[in-house]
Amino acid sequence: MRIGKIIGTVTATRKDERLTGCKLMLTQPLNDGQPAGDPLVAVDTVGAGIGEIVLFATGAASRHAANRQQSPIDAAIVGIIDSIDLAK
Amino acid sequence: MRIGKIIGTVTATRKDERLTGCKLMLTQPLNDGQPAGDPLVAVDTVGAGIGEIVLFATGAASRHAANRQQSPIDAAIVGIIDSIDLAK
Amino acid sequence: MRIGKIIGTVTATRKDERLTGCKLMLTQPLNDGQPAGDPLVAVDTVGAGIGEIVLFATGAASRHAANRQQSPIDAAIVGIIDSIDLAK
Amino acid sequence: MRIGKIIGTVTATRKDERLTGCKLMLTQPLNDGQPAGDPLVAVDTVGAGIGEIVLFATGAASRHAANRQQSPIDAAIVGIIDSIDLAK
Amino acid sequence: MRIGKIIGTVTATRKDERLTGCKLMLTQPLNDGQPAGDPLVAVDTVGAGIGEIVLFATGAASRHAANRQQSPIDAAIVGIIDSIDLAK
Repeated sequence: MRIGKIIGTVTATRKDERLTGCKLMLTQPLNDGQPAGDPLVAVDTVGAGIGEIVLFATGAASRHAANRQQSPIDAAIVGIIDSIDLAK
Repeated sequence: MRIGKIIGTVTATRKDERLTGCKLMLTQPLNDGQPAGDPLVAVDTVGAGIGEIVLFATGAASRHAANRQQSPIDAAIVGIIDSIDLAK
Repeated sequence: MRIGKIIGTVTATRKDERLTGCKLMLTQPLNDGQPAGDPLVAVDTVGAGIGEIVLFATGAASRHAANRQQSPIDAAIVGIIDSIDLAK
Repeated sequence: MRIGKIIGTVTATRKDERLTGCKLMLTQPLNDGQPAGDPLVAVDTVGAGIGEIVLFATGAASRHAANRQQSPIDAAIVGIIDSIDLAK
Repeated sequence: MRIGKIIGTVTATRKDERLTGCKLMLTQPLNDGQPAGDPLVAVDTVGAGIGEIVLFATGAASRHAANRQQSPIDAAIVGIIDSIDLAK
């Protein structure tokens, strides 16, 4: 999984029907709190909101998270991070 | 999923027969509206056209989108984006 | 899928037997006709030759293309490109 | 698989229930002992601790390692490295 | 698949039991004979040795190569390269 920040939402009326009802969250991968890599669009599965630091998964893991195995989902928010404890 | 822009179309007469009938769209991944990464060829599944800003998926998600699970598809357009609302 | 150019062939006598009979094509991914990323070795499934501009797929899509689902193939040539029409 | 160093732990109370009980380890991929690429969050499956040099896997391999095939896991620690012997 | 060079071996006593008996080879991906990307740890399936130029596969393809479908393997050596013939 990766750490990311939700920086926005994406709306698409004309989309695959198996994305219907999914909250599409624009998610910025982070490295040590800084943007690292391109934002991606992840389906929210844990009630995350804009600005929150989250855990996201990609590939088949994301379809498991969304419980939509036969869907076109390839990224999902799977946790809202409380803390990141770095080794001293 | 990723945000991209359809920048062209690709034609290939000699191809895997399971790509027959697929619209092959040259898609430029975007980050904040700017090109980010190399273009890829995605199968259209939602009636997207050149110049449109789209949502695309890769891997098995794309075969689900195209309803062609046993095909050589590894990228598909799965939505046409209406809006991207960034956090203030 | 990605656009690439076949720049060579690879021979490996000692290899997984499920690669036996496969033409191993050294393929350079392209972006706007220029090299973009590292070459990879893709199994030819459409009769492509050296110098041709092709469509290649990676991951499980490539095993579908080669009709060798239980094989160690992770990249395959799935089309020979006639034309790439870019938006004006 | 890749070589990495465990540099911290991640806590997320609100997460997919199939991550419950998983130790979420912030893991820095290494190349020749130096950071190489962005840290990722991997589920520990071998009792690894902070500071240890580990072997991690991604994708479906990680779900096999965690014995949670239908979970949102996409990275897992699968070994604790004793030694890396480089060719002379 | 990718071309790589075996630059070392990795030992891990505490590891997933499904890696037991696997030779863990530190493999440097190559582009035109030069290092290209970070080394990865691939399971040998063809009797490759240190210094050899090999063909490696990643993802599910690697588990097929190792005949360990339910294992935490995500990279495997699947061929020992005899020759790479580049187009004139």
